[in-house]
Formats: sequence, structure tokens, C-alpha cells
Amino acid sequence: MFIRFITTGGTIDKIYFDDLSQYEVGESQIQHILHEGLVVFDYEVVPLLHKDSLEVTDEDRAILRDYIKSDDAERFVVTHGTDTMPDTADALAGLAGKTIVLTGALTPARFKATDAMFNVGMAVAAAQVASPGVYIAMNGRVFEAGHVRKNRAENRFEST
Amino acid sequence: MFIRFITTGGTIDKIYFDDLSQYEVGESQIQHILHEGLVVFDYEVVPLLHKDSLEVTDEDRAILRDYIKSDDAERFVVTHGTDTMPDTADALAGLAGKTIVLTGALTPARFKATDAMFNVGMAVAAAQVASPGVYIAMNGRVFEAGHVRKNRAENRFEST
Amino acid sequence: MFIRFITTGGTIDKIYFDDLSQYEVGESQIQHILHEGLVVFDYEVVPLLHKDSLEVTDEDRAILRDYIKSDDAERFVVTHGTDTMPDTADALAGLAGKTIVLTGALTPARFKATDAMFNVGMAVAAAQVASPGVYIAMNGRVFEAGHVRKNRAENRFEST
Amino acid sequence: MFIRFITTGGTIDKIYFDDLSQYEVGESQIQHILHEGLVVFDYEVVPLLHKDSLEVTDEDRAILRDYIKSDDAERFVVTHGTDTMPDTADALAGLAGKTIVLTGALTPARFKATDAMFNVGMAVAAAQVASPGVYIAMNGRVFEAGHVRKNRAENRFEST
Repeated sequence: MFIRFITTGGTIDKIYFDDLSQYEVGESQIQHILHEGLVVFDYEVVPLLHKDSLEVTDEDRAILRDYIKSDDAERFVVTHGTDTMPDTADALAGLAGKTIVLTGALTPARFKATDAMFNVGMAVAAAQVASPGVYIAMNGRVFEAGHVRKNRAENRFEST
Repeated sequence: MFIRFITTGGTIDKIYFDDLSQYEVGESQIQHILHEGLVVFDYEVVPLLHKDSLEVTDEDRAILRDYIKSDDAERFVVTHGTDTMPDTADALAGLAGKTIVLTGALTPARFKATDAMFNVGMAVAAAQVASPGVYIAMNGRVFEAGHVRKNRAENRFEST
Repeated sequence: MFIRFITTGGTIDKIYFDDLSQYEVGESQIQHILHEGLVVFDYEVVPLLHKDSLEVTDEDRAILRDYIKSDDAERFVVTHGTDTMPDTADALAGLAGKTIVLTGALTPARFKATDAMFNVGMAVAAAQVASPGVYIAMNGRVFEAGHVRKNRAENRFEST
Repeated sequence: MFIRFITTGGTIDKIYFDDLSQYEVGESQIQHILHEGLVVFDYEVVPLLHKDSLEVTDEDRAILRDYIKSDDAERFVVTHGTDTMPDTADALAGLAGKTIVLTGALTPARFKATDAMFNVGMAVAAAQVASPGVYIAMNGRVFEAGHVRKNRAENRFEST
């Protein structure tokens, strides 16, 4: 089994710089998470974007879609900021033979308490078990694209 | 969606007592992991056993099978010691309409670096995505029961 | 032995809110750190301020000084933001019979990798071992007030 | 400032091997702790022993004493198992001009919740602030050698 990981930024990869009290997207945590998860399957990580999800544009989504379409892999895990994750999921619909799972985190992976590792574990399982299609793995659920939104007031994903 | 979690002991729940340098199975870490994973689905945790997996008997497996068979739930995550996890998976085969995922950890959940959270994330995703059957979620893979073994020399699970 | 802990905010207590990508001072982590450090001495925690250290004013420093001066305790640990920690230390000079140690963190205590616990350990030791006076415990050093500055370019404290 | 760290084993460095459910002394965690503590002083780490403290012999203590006596350094932090830490402290008494602080952990440094980092922080501060002599830094206290014991029933250190 082979999984292609594509990172685009978002809270999962956020880091903190003390001097300016900024909080920016840092290097991807996915390698660290997979290492700690003791995974033994084949994979490659492609850092495609490096953005807060509110800054992800339609053009970015077209690039991501083209990348997945032209790639030989059949299973993809895309790490993405949470605010527009459902929009990006929608933009990836209809790619035959591809199982695509978007995930991310509501709390940065560098925190002691973070959902990042749990979410990536879900995404990895869904990418190998689910039928071709586009999914979002967040809050313990594997949602189908087009049937999920982020409830910002409650800071969690839910079915629509 | 509802998932029944059944805990049976194993490394995932191990704790350490200083005085006697012992390392024993402690209270289940599953609630803590699900809390950190920010899950929003309905679930209940049933602590059925409290054993190293080398001590799990055929009678224990029969009790576990009967529990799952008579329970109304359709999705189960069973935390279990790794050494005999494939044996217990085999003993749960053939329960119609039940999706059962066994998981655990090669390193205790209380460690800084542990595969526990990743594995439970995988199991939760597989329990809701996979067809009815029995699976083992370890080392980044969702294996079907009967086609997986623990390679003790390498300390990882692999297909057979 | 009794130590009075006074919290004033700063990076050590920072938390992260996803929706607005803000990073704000949260509830004090000192209780959690002392609990994890398995301390057995008597102590009380007083949350006096809740500020980034760049926002701490001379009036705040006067309030802190008055608090310590009028308090019966002889040993104090003050958690404080790093940018103006030396200024606050200077403002506490000359209180007879009081051992005052300021500390904080360059990385929030909620991070997996953080200097918070190490620094509070240093401060607790210095508060009980050092002669009356004002000290800063950061970067593995116990500096005397008036002989220390934060090197912002290197993001560390150094002697002057 | 220079500190010589001498590691001798004990719970602070314990690791866990799954196959045999053993719990053995692993490589020293001191480098990792000092790195996470962002220390900037000069130091060297000498791994002298690799033992549970119940196995430390009078001969081991004589070797440790000779090492410290003949070393140019004036400040020492010795990591040690907790059960016989007071005995080793006693054996190091009377070395003129040497400030020696023993510390360790009641919970392994590899655990999520551990007193290791707090304790090493205390020891580092005491080694630079305290007068020459032998001390034990545990449970938030800096005890003088000869006036401290481990209360095994309560699993903590206390004054005698």
C-alpha cells in the first residue's frame, strides 16, 4: 500500500514565534506524526502549499486537483486548515479511482494536547478502507465531501 | 453514529510503579485519547478485561465474543495487548452485521512518544468506514483478521 | 517551607484560539507544572496580572512590589513575560528579607517541547536556596537582577 | 559557568521493552532535558553507571566520589535512582569546594507526565546558587545530604 500525503498548511502545522507574538504555519508535522505512529507502509510527503486555509484560493484548489489527477497514486491524505477544508473537499470531487481524505487539526500538532495525531490516524485508515471519493476526517468522524461543514461557534465539524 | 469501546488491557494501558520497578496494566487510556481527539460521536467504554495479552485465555475470548454478539451496537473498537491480538481477532470472526476493529499500542499511551493515539484514530475511522468484519489497526495499516501476524523480532504487525 | 507564586501572564501561559488565529494569555499553567513536578512544600498561587510583558506598566510593577512587600511570605516565584522581565526584576530591588525569583518561558507551557517546567523547577530551587534578593531564572541560569538582559535576536537571556 | 552532569541510571532514564514486558534503564535523558530547557551554560555529560539504584554498590559510590574529587569542575549534577539516592549523597560528603546536587525522577522522563524536567531544573539552579556541599533536589525541595530520606510508602522525599 502506498499513500501520498499532500500538506497545504493550516493549524496542524502552526508554530509560535516569541518575539513578535506571531503564530505562523511552520514545517509540516506529518513526518513526525507518521514516525510516532510507527507506520510501516510506503508513503511520500509533498508540501504543496503553506497557508492558513482562509487564504487558500480557487487557483490553489485547481493546482491541488490537477496534482492528484495526474499522480499515479490512488490514496491521498491532504492536511489542510480547518476553516475552508469543506470547500477544498468539494473542489476535489469526481476524480475517478482516487480515495482522498482531508484532515487537519483544531489544535497545533506541537501542543501537548492536540487532535493532530488522532486525525492523521483516522485519515490513514480511511484512505485505505474507503471507496474512491473525497472525505473529511475530523472530530472522530469520516464525513463525505458535500455533507459536512465546520461549525465555527462550536469549533467542530458536523454533518449537513 | 455510535461506537462501543471494549478495553481488555495490554501495553496501551500500562503504567509504571517505581517502588517495585513493576510495569502493570492501569486504568484505560481510551477516554483520555478520545477526549484529546475531540470526538463528537456517541460512545461508551466497557472495561471487560485487564490483562497482558499473553494471559488472555480462550474463555476470555468467548466472553468477549458473546458480549459483542449480544450487544445492540454495530461498531466496536477493542483495545488489546499486541502479542495475541491476531488470535483474539480470529476468535471474533463470523459475527454478522458487526464491524470490529482491534487496536492497541507498541508503546504505552502514557509515554511522550506513543502510537496509541494514532492507532485509536485509525480504529475509529475503520469502525465507521469498513464493511462488517474483524480488523486489526496497527502500524498504519488496517489488516483483515486471518491475514495478519505480529512480527516480534521487528516489533510490528505485517500481512500474512 | 512556603513559596508564594505570583502569575502576571506572558508566553508561559499563552494559549491559541483557532478561529481568529490569535494567541492569547490563558489561565496560569503553574498549578499544572507544580503538580507534575510532584512538589510537596506549601504554596499558594496569586494571579495578579494577565498580560503580555510588553504591556506591563510601571503602575503594574508598583502594585507587584507593594504586594510582595506587604506579604508575610519570604520566598516568591513570579511568572512573567520574557520581554520586560529584567525591568520588572529591577523594580523589585531592595525588599529586605525577600527572595524573589522571576521566571517564564520562551515557548508556551502547553507545547510538547517547552522550557516552562525546567524554568519553574529552577525558580523553585533558587527561591529556597538563594540569599534574599531578586533573581531571574531562565536558560538554565540564575541571574541576579540588574545583571541580565534578554537578547531578542538570539531569543535568550544573558549576563550584562 | 560550567556544570558536570554525571548519570548513573535510575527511573529517570528507564525505558520499556514490549516483548518481555521489561522496564530497563536506557540511554540518558539528560541531554534531551537540557536541550528542551534551552540552557546556554557550558556543560558535559559523563555516563558513569547504568543501574537501578538498589544495585548501586559501595564500590560504585567510591568510584563516583573519586571521579568528582579529581575533576576540575566545581558544580555537579548527578542523576541517580531514587531508592538509594540519600545513601549516595552521604557517600559524597566532605569534598571541599564542590557543590554536588543529586536528582532523578519518580516517573520516567519519557512519560508525558514526569517530574524529570522539573527536578533537573531544580538541580541546575541549586548547583549554581548553593554553597559547596551535597544536596538532593526532589519533590520541589532542595534537601541537604544527611537530612533527607525517601518515604517509600508515600513515594516521596522528606526531611529527617
